Amino acid sequence: MTKTIAIIGGTGALGTGLALRWAHAGHTVIVGSRTAEKAEAAAAELNAELGREAITGMENAAAVAAADLAILTVEQAAHEAALLSVKDALQGKVLLDATARLSFHELTPPVAPAAARRAQELLGAGVRVAAAFQTVPAAGLRKNITEPMDSDVLVCADDMDAAEAALALVHAAGLNGYYAGKLDNAITVEGLTSLLVSMNKHYKSRHGTIRVAGIRKE
Amino acid sequence: MTKTIAIIGGTGALGTGLALRWAHAGHTVIVGSRTAEKAEAAAAELNAELGREAITGMENAAAVAAADLAILTVEQAAHEAALLSVKDALQGKVLLDATARLSFHELTPPVAPAAARRAQELLGAGVRVAAAFQTVPAAGLRKNITEPMDSDVLVCADDMDAAEAALALVHAAGLNGYYAGKLDNAITVEGLTSLLVSMNKHYKSRHGTIRVAGIRKE
Repeated sequence: MTKTIAIIGGTGALGTGLALRWAHAGHTVIVGSRTAEKAEAAAAELNAELGREAITGMENAAAVAAADLAILTVEQAAHEAALLSVKDALQGKVLLDATARLSFHELTPPVAPAAARRAQELLGAGVRVAAAFQTVPAAGLRKNITEPMDSDVLVCADDMDAAEAALALVHAAGLNGYYAGKLDNAITVEGLTSLLVSMNKHYKSRHGTIRVAGIRKE
Repeated sequence: MTKTIAIIGGTGALGTGLALRWAHAGHTVIVGSRTAEKAEAAAAELNAELGREAITGMENAAAVAAADLAILTVEQAAHEAALLSVKDALQGKVLLDATARLSFHELTPPVAPAAARRAQELLGAGVRVAAAFQTVPAAGLRKNITEPMDSDVLVCADDMDAAEAALALVHAAGLNGYYAGKLDNAITVEGLTSLLVSMNKHYKSRHGTIRVAGIRKE
């Protein structure tokens, strides 16, 4: 089913990569930003890349208000401020949170609770939060958007409707998704980014990511 | 280089699987247990499975004293007691800690610090601890011991010699290993067990595990 998806803070590498892939899959995509101008400029660039007008740009709260569901792809430092700016518009909807807090200098695990749990607490029970996409190498998303990516997405949510919505969007983006338990488990997925950066440094790579093996989905 | 490896609490599924695979790779393996009798019985059974006398059994501390390095594969409830029983024998050696604390009922992430960090603190600076093997499906290890397993091992250690020793034993067991950063990152690898059990329940599987993609090792 075709959805209208708002990408809050959607002008970065992860947001624009997902925008292109979801537009390619037939969804209606609204790139959000703190200003409508910045969002519209990003949308214009993405439409040029797509070769058709499939993506619009709006200020974050307006984008969320116009969408069926939303995903948060801001930098970790902007997490709380971005959530507060869209809190009202999100009520009654599903939010995917892709935030992975990472200290690039220390490369130590993030402190619990998970960013997505903090989002759930801040937004209240009227919003159903799922954590997804934290470990996907953002640079790879925007390349060959018609090709599947060699990366799996671990989806954590307390609400199974939110989990199913997330899994459908993972699939639409050309990735394999797995339901990986309750929202608090997102702290572990967040923590994987420190391990992936550690691996990338050690093995002089840039594209380390996680896959799941041994599970056959019905 | 052939090593003598003590497997502390080595009579369970993980310990016996690793014993068979390391013996097959040419290492000298000592299965440890709280009593010499139980360890000897497990070793006899494993030798029968191997078809030759390659594995011996000893009480845990004696096993460690006779070994070049050791791995801890006890149940989570026995973690501290087992470490205290081998603390003296481990001084000057490398310890791999495979412990993943998991609440099967809650399936929530373990509380930091990581089990391997607790081990390092308990054992003191004279022992170099690496975390490894927490996410490997133990049942699969004992099957087709000459075949590689579809599971990757994330090795976390502050000491690079300990990490290299762990990676060599991962390879000897027929698995692919990756250095994934400092010892504190082991909390994230521990946490993956909650996600894997959640996935196994959701997808009615028993063998869910983690692989790494996007990294080429030199």
